[in-house]
Amino acid sequence: MDGGDPAELARRCRALIRDIPDFPKPGIVFRDITPLLGSGPVFGEVVDALAAICRRAGWRPDAVVCPEARGFLFGAPLAYRLGVGLVPVRKPDKLPHETRRIEYQLEYGSDAVEIHADALTPGRSVVLVDDLIATGGTLGACATLLTEHGVEVLGALCLVELDGLGGRGRLAPVPLHSIVHYPS
Amino acid sequence: MDGGDPAELARRCRALIRDIPDFPKPGIVFRDITPLLGSGPVFGEVVDALAAICRRAGWRPDAVVCPEARGFLFGAPLAYRLGVGLVPVRKPDKLPHETRRIEYQLEYGSDAVEIHADALTPGRSVVLVDDLIATGGTLGACATLLTEHGVEVLGALCLVELDGLGGRGRLAPVPLHSIVHYPS
Repeated sequence: MDGGDPAELARRCRALIRDIPDFPKPGIVFRDITPLLGSGPVFGEVVDALAAICRRAGWRPDAVVCPEARGFLFGAPLAYRLGVGLVPVRKPDKLPHETRRIEYQLEYGSDAVEIHADALTPGRSVVLVDDLIATGGTLGACATLLTEHGVEVLGALCLVELDGLGGRGRLAPVPLHSIVHYPS
Repeated sequence: MDGGDPAELARRCRALIRDIPDFPKPGIVFRDITPLLGSGPVFGEVVDALAAICRRAGWRPDAVVCPEARGFLFGAPLAYRLGVGLVPVRKPDKLPHETRRIEYQLEYGSDAVEIHADALTPGRSVVLVDDLIATGGTLGACATLLTEHGVEVLGALCLVELDGLGGRGRLAPVPLHSIVHYPS
């Protein structure tokens, strides 16, 4: 199973992603993926397609790394599908053991994410997975945190990419593959 | 694959679950499952074992329902494995569409969870999945929310059960299966 034709899968995904105007704040159109999650066949095809992207790219990661909470929805089944471990990236003070933290800038203010310090040793390789990439703040922070620790970030995978918001550029040189694209 | 011998799997899981004293507050021993998540083979066996429990119990759910964030780590790959959809239960104000909310009591204060009102129609059947059950507050609230809406909760599945904290009783009559047990 490789998820079939990418354009056809993108079409099926798009039909199950719901636009919610003015969420979480006025002027933002939220891309609601919950109807897609609720479709067993399409959810399964997305996971298979993410695995197929890894295979075609020649990525053989030691683990999948994914930020909470929605990153877990795709990262966990991809790790299962690939037969590798999963390393969660969490908001501050959620992980109970010694952590490495990185802060990153948002449009207004800043945010931070953490990873367990002993989760990945230098020399390991990973793929990053999230549901959606917009400005790339979170995934870019993850990539920096991992790279600074000597972990090789083979690439990043997202279900949805908002092309106009610069996430792909912020992640570079880490390659990004997304299944569905929207302008913003 | 059915995860093999349950006692042997429990032993392997226990070897990868780390006790963190006094987290998140003094007197609590936190059962840290991140080393287990980081082991591709054991993580995969856990997901296969959860699927095997469903099969042996005769549960054929229409969807997997799981609370954020750690419930996603097992619920999402189980949904993928079973070929069914996934319905996330989230903290208040995270889901963008019309929701149903339920409040529930904690030791001090209360908490609440939400589900999209249109995620499951009456008559559908589901299994609940979380990483750990302690007092059963969250999973019990999920079961009540679903049952009141006419959704059949076939059962609940957890990686870890803290036997002494009453979660199993709070979920009853919904049956609960857990892979690893601790007294508390």
